[in-house]
Order: sequence, then C-alpha cells, then structure tokens
Amino acid sequence: MKNKATRFRSISYLLILILLNTSAVLAQATTDISHENALKALLAAKEKAEQSDVLVNIAVVDAGANLKAFIRMDDSYLGSIDIAIKKAKTSRYFDINTGDLGKLSQPGGIIYNIELSNDGLITFPGGVPIKNENGKIIGAIGVSGGTIEQDHEIAIAGANSINK
Amino acid sequence: MKNKATRFRSISYLLILILLNTSAVLAQATTDISHENALKALLAAKEKAEQSDVLVNIAVVDAGANLKAFIRMDDSYLGSIDIAIKKAKTSRYFDINTGDLGKLSQPGGIIYNIELSNDGLITFPGGVPIKNENGKIIGAIGVSGGTIEQDHEIAIAGANSINK
Amino acid sequence: MKNKATRFRSISYLLILILLNTSAVLAQATTDISHENALKALLAAKEKAEQSDVLVNIAVVDAGANLKAFIRMDDSYLGSIDIAIKKAKTSRYFDINTGDLGKLSQPGGIIYNIELSNDGLITFPGGVPIKNENGKIIGAIGVSGGTIEQDHEIAIAGANSINK
Amino acid sequence: MKNKATRFRSISYLLILILLNTSAVLAQATTDISHENALKALLAAKEKAEQSDVLVNIAVVDAGANLKAFIRMDDSYLGSIDIAIKKAKTSRYFDINTGDLGKLSQPGGIIYNIELSNDGLITFPGGVPIKNENGKIIGAIGVSGGTIEQDHEIAIAGANSINK
Repeated sequence: MKNKATRFRSISYLLILILLNTSAVLAQATTDISHENALKALLAAKEKAEQSDVLVNIAVVDAGANLKAFIRMDDSYLGSIDIAIKKAKTSRYFDINTGDLGKLSQPGGIIYNIELSNDGLITFPGGVPIKNENGKIIGAIGVSGGTIEQDHEIAIAGANSINK
Repeated sequence: MKNKATRFRSISYLLILILLNTSAVLAQATTDISHENALKALLAAKEKAEQSDVLVNIAVVDAGANLKAFIRMDDSYLGSIDIAIKKAKTSRYFDINTGDLGKLSQPGGIIYNIELSNDGLITFPGGVPIKNENGKIIGAIGVSGGTIEQDHEIAIAGANSINK
Repeated sequence: MKNKATRFRSISYLLILILLNTSAVLAQATTDISHENALKALLAAKEKAEQSDVLVNIAVVDAGANLKAFIRMDDSYLGSIDIAIKKAKTSRYFDINTGDLGKLSQPGGIIYNIELSNDGLITFPGGVPIKNENGKIIGAIGVSGGTIEQDHEIAIAGANSINK
Repeated sequence: MKNKATRFRSISYLLILILLNTSAVLAQATTDISHENALKALLAAKEKAEQSDVLVNIAVVDAGANLKAFIRMDDSYLGSIDIAIKKAKTSRYFDINTGDLGKLSQPGGIIYNIELSNDGLITFPGGVPIKNENGKIIGAIGVSGGTIEQDHEIAIAGANSINK
C-alpha cells in the first residue's frame, strides 16, 4: 500500500510538473504591448515629467510601430506632438534609443541623412524601445518637450514602468 | 449695539460679495481642454466601448484642433487610428458632429467633397465637440472601430464625461 | 504483473496525451505572417494570374500592415504598384475584403469618402485578409492589374495557399 | 572538285556567320529586368543574408526605377522597408552605388543634401545597379537591415546572381 501510494504521489508530482510547464507556456510573454500597458507607460512618464517640472508630449507605439497611446501635457510645445510620435516610431523602426541613431546620422556618419526615410525620423534623444519581461521589444515610447536629457529620462521611466 | 451689529453685518455682506466675485473669476470656465479632462474623456469613452463590447480607437483634440490624448484598444482596427484622429479634428475644425457635416458633403451637396481639405476630413459619425460647463467648445473627441452609431455613442459618452 | 503493466501503460498514455497537449500549445499558430508564407502567397497568386493570363502586381503586408513581400509581373500596369500595396494595407487596416468596404463608402453610404484616410485607401475588390490555420488574421494580400473579379480571385488564391 | 568544295565551304561559313549574327540579334540582352530575374536577385540576396546571419529588407526596382520585387525577412527592422526601397530607387535614379553618391552629398560636397529630392534619397551603402550580361543597367537592388558593409555585400550578391 505504501509503495503504491508513493508511486501514485510520484506520478502526481510528475503530472503537476508537466501541467505547470504547460501553464508556463500558456502564460508566455506577449509580443505586442497592450493598451493597458501603453497607458501605464504613458502615466509613469507623465508622473516623472511632473516630478521634474517639465512639460512634455508622450507617445507610445506598438510592435508594428502604430500609435497606441498619446498624451500632451497642458502648455507643452505644440511642435512636440509630431516629434514625440516620430521619436516613438523611430525607436521601434530600428529597435534603438533615438539618440544612439543620431550619433550615426551626423555629417560624415555611416547613415547620414537617414532622417529623410520613413516620412521623417527624429534621431535625437527621447525615444526608447519598450521591452516585455523577457527582454523582447514590444513597442516604443517617445517624449518631447524638455531638454533631450529630460526627454530621455522621462521616456526611460515610462518604458521601465510596465515590468514593475 | 444694534447699530454696531448692523454695521458688522453690512461689512460681512460686502466681504462675502467680494469673495464670491473673486471666486467667480477664479472658477471661470477654461476655454481649452486640460490633459486631465482629455484623459477623463478618453477613459469614459473606453469604458462605454467596453460595456458595448466594441473595440475602438479614441482621440481627443484641444481647442486648437491639435492632438491632446489618444488610445487604441487591443485588436481594434489599425486603420481606425487615423480615422479617430481625423474625426476629432474634423469635429473641431467646424464645431460640428462629423455625421452632420457628412450630410452636406454628398454628391450634389452644398459642400461636396470638403473631405479633400485639411489633409483629409472624415465626415461620417463618430466625431463630436467637447464643451465646457458653459457650453463653449474646448476640444473634440473622435471614435472609430465600431458601427457609426456605436462610434457616435461612445464619443458622446466621452464628451459628456468632463462636466460630471 | 499484467495489472501493473496495464496501469503503467495507462499512465504512459496519459503522459503522452498531456505532452501532446503541451506540444500543441508550443506549436500554437503564429499571429504574424512569416516571410516564407508571404512568398508562398505571392507565388501562388502569380501562378493563378498566369493560368488566367492576367498581368498583375501582388503585395503582401504583415499583421502590422507593413509591406512584407511584393512582385510585379512583366508588362503589368505601373499604376498598379501603389494600388496593390494600398489594397493589401486597406484589407488589413479593417480586416475586410476591400470590395466589401467599397460597398459602404459610396455616395450616400455610411462611410462615404473613407478612402481619404490613412494616406489613401483602395476600396474596390482585390485585397483580402490572410488567415492562419486557426482563422486569425495575420496579414493581407492585394492584387491589381486585371479586372476587379480577376484581382479578387488571384488574391484569394494567394491567401488560401498558406494553409495548404 | 577542290575548287567547288572550297566554294561550298566559303558559302557555309558565310551562312554560319549570318546565322550567328541573326541569333546574336535575337538573343540580344533585355534592357529591363524581368520579374523572374528580380525574384532571382531577391532570393540570392536573401540567401547571402542568411549565410551572413543578418536580417534584411530587400527591394528590386526595374529600369524605370519602379518597384519590381520586395521581401522583408522576419524580425528585420520595420524602418528598413522604406530604406531598402529608397536605396534601390536612388541607385537607379543615378546609376550608381548609393554609397558613392553619399560621398558627394556631405556638407561641403558638390551635391550637398541631394537626399531632399525625389521624395527622399538614401545615400549610404546598400543600393547597387543591376546590369545585364552586356553591362547595361536594367534595374537596381537595395538592401537594409545590417551594417552598411553587410547591406552592400548582400546587394552585390543579388545583383550578380542574374548573370550566372
């Protein structure tokens, strides 16, 4: 009896392990940002901007580089609407921080004037990829309105928020 | 005593009047939608869409017809990003429900093909002005993804939310 | 012994069933078209066009409505390059056969002049969604160069090819 | 006898010469890339990319600089769709390797900011002309997704494939 019970328990453990594995597969990380997470990133970035006393536009695009969420803070630059969106798109187009792309597109750089592609890229800081918990890029966030350092910091705050 | 009390009361009234007046000035209705209200309208519209089991894109523009807030629900149409934004802009461009404009832009209509202006208007239902508590238009909301009736209802829910 | 063996076999079957289930999850259908399948759809459509003696342009877009594959048959219309691409994009933008959208966008229709959105839609037949084996839309194909009936038939042939 | 035979041989030679010449005319090189060759160049470039473990977008344009064939490898940059097409077009617009054009368009260069013409040129490496067996340019190929050196190498592999 004891032996039988032990064997049964062993098999049960095995089944549970297999089932857990199955459920782990089912719960695999999504490869496209949800609107809830896009909103979360937006609000985290906005909070960071408020703490830093900066007025910005914030855009989030999905894995397909399509606009997912956007907000413009009161009294922020009107010209920053398009820049925030273009920063987010540029970041996802090339899976890169926009500022890093800009280092390569200067006169004499290896991809000089790449900004003229894709209906206009923005290649100064403020656009960063958004990754899921496995590190896979699922979208991007673009921020415009402060200094390039502030924009970048605010974008980072937004991008990091979804895995907290 | 009585006189003194009367005088005191008179001064009190005067103070109250002044304070009331001041507060009336302070509380005067804004003429441009705030980002907090844009977000409120966005989320009210989203809630309405969820109740109606419809997947939509929602855009809010300010008094200057510039994008203020946007969200795209998961699995809603990709083509509705641009349509939601254009509905909101169209509504504010002419301070009208987009569906009402569409009645006038049909072949033979008095403003036939007005859709070709302003980088493309959308003149079917789903865009409605947003008014402040005094009835002044301070922005507009555009919704796309459901039937035109659903889009209109959801836009109304969003527009009405900010005066509650 | 026999009893024990039977029980062991039963458990083995159970394990195999569970494992199969797990592997079914692992092999779950992709939600974005691969370039191999895009090429397959392209060539199946081209073969259909050749059988029908029609010269066409064929475009395939992915789940994000971004261009994935394209071919223009010799001597087909130059103007059909853009139309084939726009048909594919339009179909994915609204998850619909382009011809069905066109029925609704006529003068007096509920979405009149929707063609002016998204940098220009094409709403006559020739664009159809591409679905995976579970019926989920993973892209779209657009064909231009023949009659609208031929374009539609060729697009269907391309879309159907990837689940064969 | 000898004389007759000689004469006959002379006539034979003449006939052969005429026939050879005729066949040379009949087999004259095409001046526009066929879709079969465009596909061949595309797949040769793709094979080279796979060997080099690089994810790229590949575009082929014809003698008229119009899109002839295109493929985007899975997980390659979304922003490279437009760049690959623009590289191919730029190369055919000026019958030049795009990288060579870029040397002349830098600040101070003789064609500074030529990139602003033609709806946006791309003037870094990755676009090369495609020539027929007689060396006449019949189209061009553009590659984007790797380093500029990789893109150029892959484009060369595609362009060279059609004369093998």
